[in-house]
Amino acid sequence: MLSAKAYAAHKAKEALKPFTFDRRDPGPYDVVIDILFCGVCHSDLHQVRDEWGFDNAYPMVPGHEIVGRVEAVGSSVKKFKAGDMAGVGVLVDTCRTCGSCQEGLEQYCEGVIIWTYGGVEKQTGKPTYGGYSTKIVVDENYTLKISPKLKPQEAAPLLCAGITTYSPLKHWGAGPGKKVGILGLGGLGHMGVKLAAALGTEVTVLSSSSKKKEDAQRLWAHKFADMSDPKSFQEYAGYFHLIIDTVSAQHDFTKYMDLLKRDGTLVLVGLPATPPSIVPFALTGRRRAIAGSQVGGIKETQEMLDFCAEKGFGADVEVIPMGKVNEAFERMLKNDVRYRFVIDMASLKG
Amino acid sequence: MLSAKAYAAHKAKEALKPFTFDRRDPGPYDVVIDILFCGVCHSDLHQVRDEWGFDNAYPMVPGHEIVGRVEAVGSSVKKFKAGDMAGVGVLVDTCRTCGSCQEGLEQYCEGVIIWTYGGVEKQTGKPTYGGYSTKIVVDENYTLKISPKLKPQEAAPLLCAGITTYSPLKHWGAGPGKKVGILGLGGLGHMGVKLAAALGTEVTVLSSSSKKKEDAQRLWAHKFADMSDPKSFQEYAGYFHLIIDTVSAQHDFTKYMDLLKRDGTLVLVGLPATPPSIVPFALTGRRRAIAGSQVGGIKETQEMLDFCAEKGFGADVEVIPMGKVNEAFERMLKNDVRYRFVIDMASLKG
Repeated sequence: MLSAKAYAAHKAKEALKPFTFDRRDPGPYDVVIDILFCGVCHSDLHQVRDEWGFDNAYPMVPGHEIVGRVEAVGSSVKKFKAGDMAGVGVLVDTCRTCGSCQEGLEQYCEGVIIWTYGGVEKQTGKPTYGGYSTKIVVDENYTLKISPKLKPQEAAPLLCAGITTYSPLKHWGAGPGKKVGILGLGGLGHMGVKLAAALGTEVTVLSSSSKKKEDAQRLWAHKFADMSDPKSFQEYAGYFHLIIDTVSAQHDFTKYMDLLKRDGTLVLVGLPATPPSIVPFALTGRRRAIAGSQVGGIKETQEMLDFCAEKGFGADVEVIPMGKVNEAFERMLKNDVRYRFVIDMASLKG
Repeated sequence: MLSAKAYAAHKAKEALKPFTFDRRDPGPYDVVIDILFCGVCHSDLHQVRDEWGFDNAYPMVPGHEIVGRVEAVGSSVKKFKAGDMAGVGVLVDTCRTCGSCQEGLEQYCEGVIIWTYGGVEKQTGKPTYGGYSTKIVVDENYTLKISPKLKPQEAAPLLCAGITTYSPLKHWGAGPGKKVGILGLGGLGHMGVKLAAALGTEVTVLSSSSKKKEDAQRLWAHKFADMSDPKSFQEYAGYFHLIIDTVSAQHDFTKYMDLLKRDGTLVLVGLPATPPSIVPFALTGRRRAIAGSQVGGIKETQEMLDFCAEKGFGADVEVIPMGKVNEAFERMLKNDVRYRFVIDMASLKG
């Protein structure tokens, strides 16, 4: 067994505290990763606080934006060797046999998805623990290659925030000639802006915080719409082919639907606690749709990582030591982060 | 001017009463139609009662499922001659210049749609009056050809109920190999079942009224799911590519979303007064969408009429005299109609 140091929530809603546990010994298809950086995702906070009603098990070690260096590989591993940079996202295994898995859409596996934390390991029957830890052992088929062109701390948030916005941009056809709105400029939103711009689409940031205008431009947005000004809803009426909605706070979906062209789609990637409610005419009158999208498959995640490496960008991050993670949660709740906290795991190894 | 007899609501929420008015003299592109039959659509009732908050003008002559015989044509009319059978649906003109009009999607005109009733005529600046009347004058470009293979009373409901279900079935790819659910078996639903079956798709009626099982089969549905039985939600979980939702009464959208496969779409064609509200996970977890669709364009309406003529079916109707229309409204509210009332306009001509 491989001993790992971590920070865990020992009970729902409690602050994270140091925790030590064993990772499984690597099987023939496993990759042992020495974790260097792990991003702090909003869902870590939701899960630690048990806010989604999933009846979570504790202790819980959060973290699913993991980048590290391969330390060892199982005897049958083909894709990785010791010394390679590797990444792990929100899932570490799926059924591998259903239609979605066969199509490389593991994120929609119709069997059981083994989440990176809060799940149950197929190999041991024990809880999965996430990336707020020094080591992780993952099947090579669920491990991503991280190009040396990417800074590892900036690559970490790509594993969730990056793929969560990239996948719907690709699926709903963002690219040259299309107008895309990114609703909300936070961890997800800032990656949505960069990725959409890099895909060659016209990007507008829709934000209620006019203070973010300069940031939006720096992040390659072509336009900024201040949604605290009612005139913006007139100015952008029927403007967008696609809106990626990253906002978890309550908002008026009908008003945002009206910003879509005929046949436009608003895609939820955030998970608002209050169910979206839409006046039917906002859908029927222009054949619009509201849809949802959840991270991305392994193949598409690799494609996105390679795309970012080729274009030379990762996330905008603030690197923190593990001891600051509880403070980071509080700051995240106040949107006081530009745009993703990333834990430097060296702080835990000492 | 051409004098027409009609039934009109003289004020919101009042019973319909006899009304006489003048139709415009036909211009060069106009078709004068002697109305034979007009279907009674749920929206007639909503509009007469001003339930959609449109600030309607009265008197209002409802009716937008119109079939009749061409009585005369303007000097430049090419598509019709006296004696032809003709139909008129929910719209009698649009801007003709926007992208949607150019694409033959007049129902999504980005300018002004002139509805068959409750609108303002371009030609005269006067109110448009619908089909609960003896005559109508319509531009030939917004007039449909009705094949002699169709019984006119059975063709009338195709102009709204038919095209409203045909258009989303075609747009979202119903056909062989696809599984379609029709939610609600009323005026719209019964046409949805027939059209979907005729398009070669597997059709399941989703109804809370087990009494409709026999009807569903008679209407060519392959399966019937009794949604008053909670087990049906398990049995059909993840089953459908497409659900056409014809129900205007309040219902739990999240539960119905769960009946869709990955990438499935639920399309609203009814207009529930209570805005649909959907738990986000029901969308994100399977990349599902909820969309809306509104009737169809002129070209597609003609295609649907010709398809029905070729296949030899129209709507299931109960023909009534005009004097029974108020009673028909009351019966419609109780779902006491199999499946569309159609007014025989001979009853008004005498």
